[in-house]
Amino acid sequence: MPIGFVESSIILREDAPSQGDEGAPDAWIILNEHVTEGLEGIYVGQRLIILTWFHQSKRNVLKLHPRWDKNNPLTGVFATRSPDRPNPIGLHPATVLEIQENKIKVSSLEAINGTPVIDIKPDL
Amino acid sequence: MPIGFVESSIILREDAPSQGDEGAPDAWIILNEHVTEGLEGIYVGQRLIILTWFHQSKRNVLKLHPRWDKNNPLTGVFATRSPDRPNPIGLHPATVLEIQENKIKVSSLEAINGTPVIDIKPDL
Repeated sequence: MPIGFVESSIILREDAPSQGDEGAPDAWIILNEHVTEGLEGIYVGQRLIILTWFHQSKRNVLKLHPRWDKNNPLTGVFATRSPDRPNPIGLHPATVLEIQENKIKVSSLEAINGTPVIDIKPDL
Repeated sequence: MPIGFVESSIILREDAPSQGDEGAPDAWIILNEHVTEGLEGIYVGQRLIILTWFHQSKRNVLKLHPRWDKNNPLTGVFATRSPDRPNPIGLHPATVLEIQENKIKVSSLEAINGTPVIDIKPDL
């Protein structure tokens, strides 16, 4: 069950960069009301890991050419960060830019608008 | 749906350290047969992030005293790494020690025997 969702200017999957540091825009994480108090203690400037569920992913992919490049050798999905994978969980390291009641703005998130958020943790 | 499970000498939750670098033992990740080919390309010495599902967690916890210490101030769950959280996903950075057909041995995993594994990724 999602705890919230991503509000982003990226609308289509083909417009999302492969990693956050490859030009992804800042985005809002909108928390469901019933879990909002779980944000207490998060502060501007903190490094977090946002966990998302790539709801548009193919879940039957076990091998692939990394970065959709046929020049890269066919590789097991667990050795890659492909969003197409059996459980399509995204890990997004991000910095907190702003906090408002039930939402937080974070830097450079490579997830499309409407992507479910399943957890938020302090960075490893 | 799990992709496999943890085989560990830690049997009880109260015996698991809070973090892998606090004395957790090496453990095996046993993959389900139908996803085994997803391991191809993983190598001994590689740094991975193992994602687990803490199946014994309480999922209604929104605030807590970090590390179960009343001296720590009550904190929102998303600002902590508590295993008790709405979606009890564990992130475990670990090094690959050995690979055998459908299983990999990794260093210092703070998850109990039988914990479901939901994803494996290269380290961030």
